[in-house]
Amino acid sequence: MLVVMQHGATKEQVERVVKTIEDMGYQARPMPGAQRTAIGLVGNDGRVNGSRIESLEGVAHVIHVTKAYKQVSREWRPENTIVTIAPGVSFGGTEVHVIGGPCSVESEEQILAAARIVAAAGGTALRGGAFKPRSSPYSFQGMGKQGLELLDLARRETGLPIVTEALDEEGAHLVAEYADCIQVGARNMQNYSLLRAVGRIGKPVLLKRGMAASITDLLLSAEYILAEGNDQVILCERGIRSFDQLTRNLFDLTAIPLVQRLSHLPMIADPSHGTGLRDKVIPMGRAAVAAGADGIMVEVHPNPDRAMSDGGQSLHPEQFQQLVTEVRAIATVIGRSLGAGVAAPADAARMGTPAHAAG
Amino acid sequence: MLVVMQHGATKEQVERVVKTIEDMGYQARPMPGAQRTAIGLVGNDGRVNGSRIESLEGVAHVIHVTKAYKQVSREWRPENTIVTIAPGVSFGGTEVHVIGGPCSVESEEQILAAARIVAAAGGTALRGGAFKPRSSPYSFQGMGKQGLELLDLARRETGLPIVTEALDEEGAHLVAEYADCIQVGARNMQNYSLLRAVGRIGKPVLLKRGMAASITDLLLSAEYILAEGNDQVILCERGIRSFDQLTRNLFDLTAIPLVQRLSHLPMIADPSHGTGLRDKVIPMGRAAVAAGADGIMVEVHPNPDRAMSDGGQSLHPEQFQQLVTEVRAIATVIGRSLGAGVAAPADAARMGTPAHAAG
Amino acid sequence: MLVVMQHGATKEQVERVVKTIEDMGYQARPMPGAQRTAIGLVGNDGRVNGSRIESLEGVAHVIHVTKAYKQVSREWRPENTIVTIAPGVSFGGTEVHVIGGPCSVESEEQILAAARIVAAAGGTALRGGAFKPRSSPYSFQGMGKQGLELLDLARRETGLPIVTEALDEEGAHLVAEYADCIQVGARNMQNYSLLRAVGRIGKPVLLKRGMAASITDLLLSAEYILAEGNDQVILCERGIRSFDQLTRNLFDLTAIPLVQRLSHLPMIADPSHGTGLRDKVIPMGRAAVAAGADGIMVEVHPNPDRAMSDGGQSLHPEQFQQLVTEVRAIATVIGRSLGAGVAAPADAARMGTPAHAAG
Amino acid sequence: MLVVMQHGATKEQVERVVKTIEDMGYQARPMPGAQRTAIGLVGNDGRVNGSRIESLEGVAHVIHVTKAYKQVSREWRPENTIVTIAPGVSFGGTEVHVIGGPCSVESEEQILAAARIVAAAGGTALRGGAFKPRSSPYSFQGMGKQGLELLDLARRETGLPIVTEALDEEGAHLVAEYADCIQVGARNMQNYSLLRAVGRIGKPVLLKRGMAASITDLLLSAEYILAEGNDQVILCERGIRSFDQLTRNLFDLTAIPLVQRLSHLPMIADPSHGTGLRDKVIPMGRAAVAAGADGIMVEVHPNPDRAMSDGGQSLHPEQFQQLVTEVRAIATVIGRSLGAGVAAPADAARMGTPAHAAG
Repeated sequence: MLVVMQHGATKEQVERVVKTIEDMGYQARPMPGAQRTAIGLVGNDGRVNGSRIESLEGVAHVIHVTKAYKQVSREWRPENTIVTIAPGVSFGGTEVHVIGGPCSVESEEQILAAARIVAAAGGTALRGGAFKPRSSPYSFQGMGKQGLELLDLARRETGLPIVTEALDEEGAHLVAEYADCIQVGARNMQNYSLLRAVGRIGKPVLLKRGMAASITDLLLSAEYILAEGNDQVILCERGIRSFDQLTRNLFDLTAIPLVQRLSHLPMIADPSHGTGLRDKVIPMGRAAVAAGADGIMVEVHPNPDRAMSDGGQSLHPEQFQQLVTEVRAIATVIGRSLGAGVAAPADAARMGTPAHAAG
Repeated sequence: MLVVMQHGATKEQVERVVKTIEDMGYQARPMPGAQRTAIGLVGNDGRVNGSRIESLEGVAHVIHVTKAYKQVSREWRPENTIVTIAPGVSFGGTEVHVIGGPCSVESEEQILAAARIVAAAGGTALRGGAFKPRSSPYSFQGMGKQGLELLDLARRETGLPIVTEALDEEGAHLVAEYADCIQVGARNMQNYSLLRAVGRIGKPVLLKRGMAASITDLLLSAEYILAEGNDQVILCERGIRSFDQLTRNLFDLTAIPLVQRLSHLPMIADPSHGTGLRDKVIPMGRAAVAAGADGIMVEVHPNPDRAMSDGGQSLHPEQFQQLVTEVRAIATVIGRSLGAGVAAPADAARMGTPAHAAG
Repeated sequence: MLVVMQHGATKEQVERVVKTIEDMGYQARPMPGAQRTAIGLVGNDGRVNGSRIESLEGVAHVIHVTKAYKQVSREWRPENTIVTIAPGVSFGGTEVHVIGGPCSVESEEQILAAARIVAAAGGTALRGGAFKPRSSPYSFQGMGKQGLELLDLARRETGLPIVTEALDEEGAHLVAEYADCIQVGARNMQNYSLLRAVGRIGKPVLLKRGMAASITDLLLSAEYILAEGNDQVILCERGIRSFDQLTRNLFDLTAIPLVQRLSHLPMIADPSHGTGLRDKVIPMGRAAVAAGADGIMVEVHPNPDRAMSDGGQSLHPEQFQQLVTEVRAIATVIGRSLGAGVAAPADAARMGTPAHAAG
Repeated sequence: MLVVMQHGATKEQVERVVKTIEDMGYQARPMPGAQRTAIGLVGNDGRVNGSRIESLEGVAHVIHVTKAYKQVSREWRPENTIVTIAPGVSFGGTEVHVIGGPCSVESEEQILAAARIVAAAGGTALRGGAFKPRSSPYSFQGMGKQGLELLDLARRETGLPIVTEALDEEGAHLVAEYADCIQVGARNMQNYSLLRAVGRIGKPVLLKRGMAASITDLLLSAEYILAEGNDQVILCERGIRSFDQLTRNLFDLTAIPLVQRLSHLPMIADPSHGTGLRDKVIPMGRAAVAAGADGIMVEVHPNPDRAMSDGGQSLHPEQFQQLVTEVRAIATVIGRSLGAGVAAPADAARMGTPAHAAG
């Protein structure tokens, strides 16, 4: 931590800062400069409460040098963490995975059709919401437990592992019985009770970046999960708030290489929410993989015109096929490959007990 | 809802949109224009799923005219809703109230001292966190239930009603036993499970605007609470994310007259979080009242240099006194007055059973 | 400047940074920390090129402690600079001034009527655009030189000094012949050729904050003017870009106390552009003065329904009167007073030669 | 244009809006709805002044359906405009071009070395600032005319056409004597005098998006150039302002497919300014091409550690080579190819008179 004194701060003010730092159990190292004095705090273990010093007289501002997160940091663990949501579906290695599926589970027919489209095109995991966080209390809120059962059915049919969202602690336990990976959505990125819950449950977690979350905020939220002993966390860029209303969100792809440098956790991107516009999903899905994403998560619906939510950003089946084909080629350009995923459906049946039955 | 067709959309494309609107049970009213055709959807009850139409061919974009919220709207209820958190402490009328107190409850000595400072200066409610949502899992997370008990003690001493935050459904029930008003913080503004819980509990709620929340988002979140039958909701501006790092947040005071026009709910402002800088709290607290806020919520600490959280934005006791004096005068300029609050401490004791004992 | 090394940076990397700093003519002061080493650069005169150091191996990032601006800083000049645009109309002292007038000069009748409304209500300067920067090349671009002549006429009639915008260097010289204060608009805040030109001209300048400008950016742009020897600069908050489309801009009133602490230059606010909504101008104009603004700039039109630009945000005459009355009372609350302005029109005539005739 | 009336607007208020629309020379088409009446304005030619209607009583808000820009729109010209800055260097067709070079021209040795690096790696145009817009008046402002002469020399040596920035009208004429493409930078995107000047000059223009500019703003600024009869405009995404300070700007790659759908003009991206971080330039340059950019503009310096500006975001020569190789492969994946550019240096010499000599 660096304490920058005001230009013209008195010797007494500098000494009081030094004394306060020492009172807190750290060393102070004053650096008189041409324009002002700065005082380094040495020995910071990441728990220094800067606000106590900020409020001392003569202090201009306090600069935090030490990062507030630890276990998610690449300095803590230099090598990539591999997050495996099912045999053959691992994030963080050289393989790139495409997670596809509808915004919401709507019916048995719909989710089975979607799962087959995903599997046939080369996608390696199935998304689909059973519990939907909606801005309006009057919008469709998801099928709940029945939706989870339909996802389980789709997994048995296709072998695709399931990624689906939980909205609260109680829901997280229910979702964990069915899902291979529990999604924490953007609106709940700083719902610390939920983060702790999924940390304790121990299943892989897909943590989406909040709409106003900095990269540091995202990593701090992941730190909540790791602090509970669960390092199976996949991060996901899905667009942030900005001033241009032509797109639903501003898709921040630079977040991918940023996170990959700062953290050992895998990072994927969701071009469907990131843009909110169907015809932008293919170019931005390609761009995400070109930027180095460990995977993409894409909405596809057997019949987008009939979707109960987010139809306008869901791909048609043939568009999903095109996207997978293109990202496969781009992955190769940068020395990666598209994941082959789980065994074929028939084999999957032979794999026996589905995940939740073991719960 | 207005469907704007692309320039050059064919007659067939226009007809398909018309037919889809009619299939959905509404009337379609095409308006051919000089440059393009627009089609009005008549009869929208706020539940139309625009994404189904957005994805039809030839559609440029869909404009939503009907607001997605209802019960929070001034169109639904033209007169102001008065939210009473304690006898003499009502928001939404002509009185303006100052809620003061520390960021966190830290000790009996600290919270009692803070409560006395607030009451002596003319503040009419006590804030103080027992459960703290912190970006880092390693920061102080609050005293929990013990903090609630200390708040109760401070209420008995001073007569000040208590506003304190709940982080999840379980916590909300606990907080409701002690608090006069349950705060839902910015990070949880779209935690719908929590919103529904405080809606069902039925106690007054202070709902803070999220860091990336539009005014519409804020009103939609309040709608979740009203939809459970609880209209005792106070909204609060507390700063949003922006690009300038000189302040912790960007304090959006225009939100006050905006919300007051769109909704019948009272709206207050928090200049402590809104700016994050102690020496900006007084001018911006004054500005909030000048802009028409129904109250302000301000951090004050007996000894800010020793605060366990947010010390750098907490007022010193004499600064809090100055702020109350100045906003009292400004309230008068615009035809309002500072609320006198509850009876004096001695009388408060005679008022008998404290709120939570009745729970 | 502080150079933060990566966790695990080698001794050689640290030494190379030290040597580079010394090569550049400064002193280096390494501070080994618990988690990483930081190296202070001592003697920075504000011209250090950090990018050379940023790119050295082992460097995590570079933190700039010294401000890039100088002459605008309160550290450079502790007392307020008083900017006088006409006798009796000074910004930066205890007086608060209201600048009123239409968005654009439209006709003799319109600008004379507007000037009389402003003067009668207690406004002390007249605004009105002769050269308009419009987003679309097809929008009304202003009356040009004829508009300046009409402003001069209005000044002779009412005694009100004139504030009007220049769009380029050539225009600045023309505007300077007529105006008492040359406005540089938000879109041109970083048009450095124009800033240098108004710096050299030497007349008072009203510099509006750009839509994406940080406070530091604003002060750096003012520095361009002061660097040419002209310290008569009034800064103006007029709203920045944000994500909520209910208002035209996000009016950042905290900028007022921020700038007043960092700089000796006066700071006013423009609630008309800051909100873009007529019914928000009165509350936010009051809030600006309560926040400590040295003045406000407000659009008022004799007949807003007929305005050629910005009619929807222009006050009706009686609203302008109400605003002046309310800000007068609020100024008093905080120990300031509304400026009385220039002598009455009849006296103004006796003042003789108008400003531009002397040019 | 659609005028949305308040819920509860009276019949008289609706009629007044209708009459006002008719007075303005357009047709009004009222649409009574379940919750409120909306009134369509038919015949809008893009010049309707909505503010006059917005201010009528009973009007809730006005929605603009017609786009404010015309000639830049794909509705105006459905096929792509091809912008040719030199023989073999055309933007807007199937070829993708890489423009490389240093932030600033610093010396003959530096710019010649940079040009050779660019040409050898497969870049097809040379960038380099002779006039630099710097936030601080004390930063290096460029070599001016001498810089232009050195760029000309580099062009003769390598055959690479030159892209360089102009800051004002006078400078634009000077730049036009030397450059093959005049750059208008982000800070000047709404400097309408400069836009008109480069429109009249008629040479190809590279227009960079402003830091707070929406896509619509960018297209409106381009419209200023086309309105002067010059359709040789290349647009460029270079990052916008956002709240995360880990990157210099927020690189908005979705702008590429957005602009390409709305406009017939070519769109490129600048990952150097878009990220501000050297190690993010390669992944984000790849991502830009994967998103469909018609080219990328990248800073490369023979010795970035010694750069006088932006050294921290400039690629090393071998990194530039890697980037060109990777984007070549990605272009192929999406059915495009990297442009081969002009003839070899030796041939270039034979091409005779350099561009500016013909001026």
